[in-house]
Amino acid sequence: MTSSTFASPSPDRLFPADPTTRQFARELFSLVEDAAIVSPHGHVSATVIAENAWFDNPAALLVTPDHYVTRLLHANGAPLESLGVGDSGVDPRDVWRLFCSMWTIFDGTASGYWLALELHDLFGVSEAPASKNADELYDQIASRLAEPSFRPRSLMQSFGIEVLATTDDPLDDLHAHRQLRDDPTFASRVLPTFRPDAYIDAHAVDFAARVDRLIDEAGEGRVGYEGYLSAIRNRRQYFIHAGAVSSDHGVRAALSVKLEPSSAMTLFERVRRGGASEQDRDIFEAHMLYEMARMSVDDGLVMTLHPGSLRNHHPETYARFGPDKGHDIPVPVEFTASLRPLLADFGTASGFHLVLFTLDESTFSRELAPLAGFYPGVFLGSPWWFLDAPDAMLRFRAAVTETMGFSRYGGFVDDTRAFCSIPVRHDVARRVEAAYLARLVAEHRLSMDRASEIIIDVIEKAPRRAFKL
Amino acid sequence: MTSSTFASPSPDRLFPADPTTRQFARELFSLVEDAAIVSPHGHVSATVIAENAWFDNPAALLVTPDHYVTRLLHANGAPLESLGVGDSGVDPRDVWRLFCSMWTIFDGTASGYWLALELHDLFGVSEAPASKNADELYDQIASRLAEPSFRPRSLMQSFGIEVLATTDDPLDDLHAHRQLRDDPTFASRVLPTFRPDAYIDAHAVDFAARVDRLIDEAGEGRVGYEGYLSAIRNRRQYFIHAGAVSSDHGVRAALSVKLEPSSAMTLFERVRRGGASEQDRDIFEAHMLYEMARMSVDDGLVMTLHPGSLRNHHPETYARFGPDKGHDIPVPVEFTASLRPLLADFGTASGFHLVLFTLDESTFSRELAPLAGFYPGVFLGSPWWFLDAPDAMLRFRAAVTETMGFSRYGGFVDDTRAFCSIPVRHDVARRVEAAYLARLVAEHRLSMDRASEIIIDVIEKAPRRAFKL
Amino acid sequence: MTSSTFASPSPDRLFPADPTTRQFARELFSLVEDAAIVSPHGHVSATVIAENAWFDNPAALLVTPDHYVTRLLHANGAPLESLGVGDSGVDPRDVWRLFCSMWTIFDGTASGYWLALELHDLFGVSEAPASKNADELYDQIASRLAEPSFRPRSLMQSFGIEVLATTDDPLDDLHAHRQLRDDPTFASRVLPTFRPDAYIDAHAVDFAARVDRLIDEAGEGRVGYEGYLSAIRNRRQYFIHAGAVSSDHGVRAALSVKLEPSSAMTLFERVRRGGASEQDRDIFEAHMLYEMARMSVDDGLVMTLHPGSLRNHHPETYARFGPDKGHDIPVPVEFTASLRPLLADFGTASGFHLVLFTLDESTFSRELAPLAGFYPGVFLGSPWWFLDAPDAMLRFRAAVTETMGFSRYGGFVDDTRAFCSIPVRHDVARRVEAAYLARLVAEHRLSMDRASEIIIDVIEKAPRRAFKL
Repeated sequence: MTSSTFASPSPDRLFPADPTTRQFARELFSLVEDAAIVSPHGHVSATVIAENAWFDNPAALLVTPDHYVTRLLHANGAPLESLGVGDSGVDPRDVWRLFCSMWTIFDGTASGYWLALELHDLFGVSEAPASKNADELYDQIASRLAEPSFRPRSLMQSFGIEVLATTDDPLDDLHAHRQLRDDPTFASRVLPTFRPDAYIDAHAVDFAARVDRLIDEAGEGRVGYEGYLSAIRNRRQYFIHAGAVSSDHGVRAALSVKLEPSSAMTLFERVRRGGASEQDRDIFEAHMLYEMARMSVDDGLVMTLHPGSLRNHHPETYARFGPDKGHDIPVPVEFTASLRPLLADFGTASGFHLVLFTLDESTFSRELAPLAGFYPGVFLGSPWWFLDAPDAMLRFRAAVTETMGFSRYGGFVDDTRAFCSIPVRHDVARRVEAAYLARLVAEHRLSMDRASEIIIDVIEKAPRRAFKL
Repeated sequence: MTSSTFASPSPDRLFPADPTTRQFARELFSLVEDAAIVSPHGHVSATVIAENAWFDNPAALLVTPDHYVTRLLHANGAPLESLGVGDSGVDPRDVWRLFCSMWTIFDGTASGYWLALELHDLFGVSEAPASKNADELYDQIASRLAEPSFRPRSLMQSFGIEVLATTDDPLDDLHAHRQLRDDPTFASRVLPTFRPDAYIDAHAVDFAARVDRLIDEAGEGRVGYEGYLSAIRNRRQYFIHAGAVSSDHGVRAALSVKLEPSSAMTLFERVRRGGASEQDRDIFEAHMLYEMARMSVDDGLVMTLHPGSLRNHHPETYARFGPDKGHDIPVPVEFTASLRPLLADFGTASGFHLVLFTLDESTFSRELAPLAGFYPGVFLGSPWWFLDAPDAMLRFRAAVTETMGFSRYGGFVDDTRAFCSIPVRHDVARRVEAAYLARLVAEHRLSMDRASEIIIDVIEKAPRRAFKL
Repeated sequence: MTSSTFASPSPDRLFPADPTTRQFARELFSLVEDAAIVSPHGHVSATVIAENAWFDNPAALLVTPDHYVTRLLHANGAPLESLGVGDSGVDPRDVWRLFCSMWTIFDGTASGYWLALELHDLFGVSEAPASKNADELYDQIASRLAEPSFRPRSLMQSFGIEVLATTDDPLDDLHAHRQLRDDPTFASRVLPTFRPDAYIDAHAVDFAARVDRLIDEAGEGRVGYEGYLSAIRNRRQYFIHAGAVSSDHGVRAALSVKLEPSSAMTLFERVRRGGASEQDRDIFEAHMLYEMARMSVDDGLVMTLHPGSLRNHHPETYARFGPDKGHDIPVPVEFTASLRPLLADFGTASGFHLVLFTLDESTFSRELAPLAGFYPGVFLGSPWWFLDAPDAMLRFRAAVTETMGFSRYGGFVDDTRAFCSIPVRHDVARRVEAAYLARLVAEHRLSMDRASEIIIDVIEKAPRRAFKL
């Protein structure tokens, strides 16, 4: 976006150009524009909020930790270390200058849209970043970050965030969550989410060590497979008591397998001792996905499933900088046959909620909408990650609604670690829903009365319904 | 849709909002709006028409037997038995009340669109179903069902159905079809379709029993594999004499395999005796697909292929209620390599027609349009099942036309068992074709003269051409 | 298109109907409408240009050699021999008459659009081809072909082609390229492209013979695997000296494998001697893809990858007419895991450029944009072959831009052997870019200032950047 766009972002942004449709979109958006934010899945740190930490500087806030941003800078020639990744010791002002000098590469991207709005709405920036204004913008943002209104707790309030879920290690003591819950001056709900991937990923080199630690700390004296399952169950209860409403599963594939306990026990020991084949490990993970669903039926945690990302695609970058550095690349996913064992046993179980996410658009109409259109336990999550972008969201709606309507939608999930981008991301989602519904109205497929009810349902009620809030 | 929409459905429904494009769409639609309905593939019962049976009640007509409808009610918490499925003995008025109370879940779906128009056009309903008007609507519809004009034969006429194909078991005696054909007072053509799936599905537990019965009844004294093929050939002839123009194949995958007769015979016996592996069964089915194409070349029956649905996904529901209950879920399909053996031998054979359907949109541009754009024997069927919906149909057109034009299209197929929805389904298809062509005209990619010729070709001539009517 | 469209093609063709958006599109298109053509990948013959050959006749120019055209005629019942394919000896006027009589089957296709514009712009045709005007059009076009301005060198100039890359066998002596380069009166650059497929395709029956010839001619005395690699390296240098900037790889799958030299040598000998399994051959090809990337890093040739076409689908047609006859049919492609070994070692290597093409749209958002959005070495090629069409190009932009922006685009590639279609193909690409950008402007996602810069970048700079021109 250029300076003119920055100076005054259009109130009609993301709405269809056709005047009739745009007018419908305006009216529909106005119904949800100011709704409280419910964010049932994301990666903001509860500690940051509990400690009400000051944000360090513009680069540390907006560039370095955001792998949506650093990956595209990297693709255009900026080494990750020059962006401050890996505690490289680079001056954050130099990171910021580099970012500003490359600003135009974000044109047309979701990240570019979010960043532009953040800069304008939050920091009062009125011209596009560039080399020539980089220092000026840095100072302008830095001075804002020094204001008390820019500390996390104030932002929670000014952002209108009613519920914010974090993602947490099963052995986390959830100290920050309890601190926030017990603080009478803090109005929002910050909920932990139980993410057991690290203790189920049978391909990880430190699987055995992690599992041993888990059993030691939470197995209540039980050992082996029995201790393992008990420890997971215990920690789920611990999370539930701290306010958790869901468990999150970032699995390789959506495969589920039901093993008899004795087979599972044998397989667990083989995987743990390191003698298991690749296939053994896959089956163990698939079995544990099944077990997680069983536990969800028992304890009521909503289950979110995020399959289909080949993590850490570039080995050298992973070795130098660790995970979440922008080179997790999607692969094709199969849901229908893969989830069958799980859904056969739990798909119609009372209170079971499974929210499915995908990076593979071909599954929207082919598998996901038909599954959510039959199983009461299946909800379809909002477009995820690379697909959390205006055009992709419209494709999602067009692909799934004709099969499953609006009722099976799991609500928007921002899934972000970029705290300051939360309002903008929800703004985009609301505008896209308005744009889609406006088209249905303009094409006489829906009345404005119903579209008005639906946008409120989709924005306000869907996440509460799917995540039992 | 709300009451206002119900009271007077817009004549512009499903047309693009842009005024110029919409005007083109109106003009194009007017050319085919009143064209006779040709329905070359569907699941209406010929017996119902032959016997001119009265429809039972609103629930039995519009809810209970329609798995497009019951699946979404089920996903939203209505047990299938509460919808009358499985002869549950529930009062149809209670089924209707439940349906009306959940009416809004169909907003935005193809089923919701069809139902709303049916209720309005056929039954004079002028407000959206809801709990408060459920009994009133029930009585209103029930009183219409008691009128002679609502018996099937009258509806065939008032719907303007010129040809209606049913789907039939190879051992069906086609009594109803012959009765209709021989009735000088009945103007429409009701054609049987030869669907041999049950006698080819080598994974079915009763495969051997079915095959034995087929050979007994139609093998003319031949036994074994020879008797099996003879019986199929005989029954195809029987169908052809009763007016059939096509055979239908609802296969698991599109795989075709050419086996030498001796290998095929050996495999047939192994499958029949029950000692065959999963792979053996798959290969047998693939071989029989090849054989069905060979027979099509010989006897001229058009071959329709519907692969890629994992039937009866939820075992418990299948056990309780049987097939076709809304939990057939699509899986990815591969056509290019799979169909190669079949097309290598028959793809350019004189008079061979293979109409391909898919639930996997990713195959539209990747495989299906290129195949239909080379092989004279391949026609591309209209968007099927979950994809038989306005936006999906537009995606289909946009995905295939640039590669294969309009000439390789197999015509619209309503594929329905919901008799009263036939006119509405064809109305939607015609409106979508008009909307698509109108865009091409507005973008100067086609003249109105040609678009006018094309919409008539696509709606009126394509099904007659592909299905040899 | 009908006569009216032919008589005066609209200056607004391919622009969105919405008046505001269309106005933006007009303005954006005007910025690149007259830009010089850079065509970094295609199949025009350098010899034809070097010899400045006269084109034979209308059929030989526009119908017979263009498998985009003949395949659709074939699908509609025209035998390939009746179209002059395979030197059938058919009178070209009869070919032309048949083509004209079937003209309307191209409505809505990319080929139809290109042909109509070519006929109008190049040959002054003002009415749609049909049986009734076939002879007249033939004579009109033939008389133009006899004018000096229709010889290839004149057309290069009048088309405004600055760079044109051909595709060449590694053992080609590139005589024509050197002749053109050394001709001071010839202003355009005609560059060879190194396409080693025939010497890497381990499934080809004559693989061993080809490899032997390659080693004999270019191995400089080395033998076996060492001679093989040396010969390839030598010929790459030869191409580079003749102006080549890229190597082209039309592989079956995108699979890459890194083998140790000793394993590679053993495998090479096994494949060469004919004792290799199918899997061996696949692995050899995957290993050679890896080696080609390694050589690219060394010598700087840009690497273009075109996987996913099952070549010569119909065996009988292949046997009678040879390759490139319109029955290469796409199959699903996987890039993420397949390219990982190659990208692990070369994806961030200095100067390495890998331009990826696909016929499988499902990979646009799922794999290709994320890969190009991280690896500095990966560029995303323009929509290829069946996808080189207006709607498909718009889907491409909508699918990839939100993830990778505009900077990772490899520029438009016409990939054609139809010399006279080059200007029209680039015209379509420019109009589609304008249409897409105009929508982003109309939806306030981009300012006109930036859209104006972007369209120039995408059309003029992107191909030069990706192909190092």
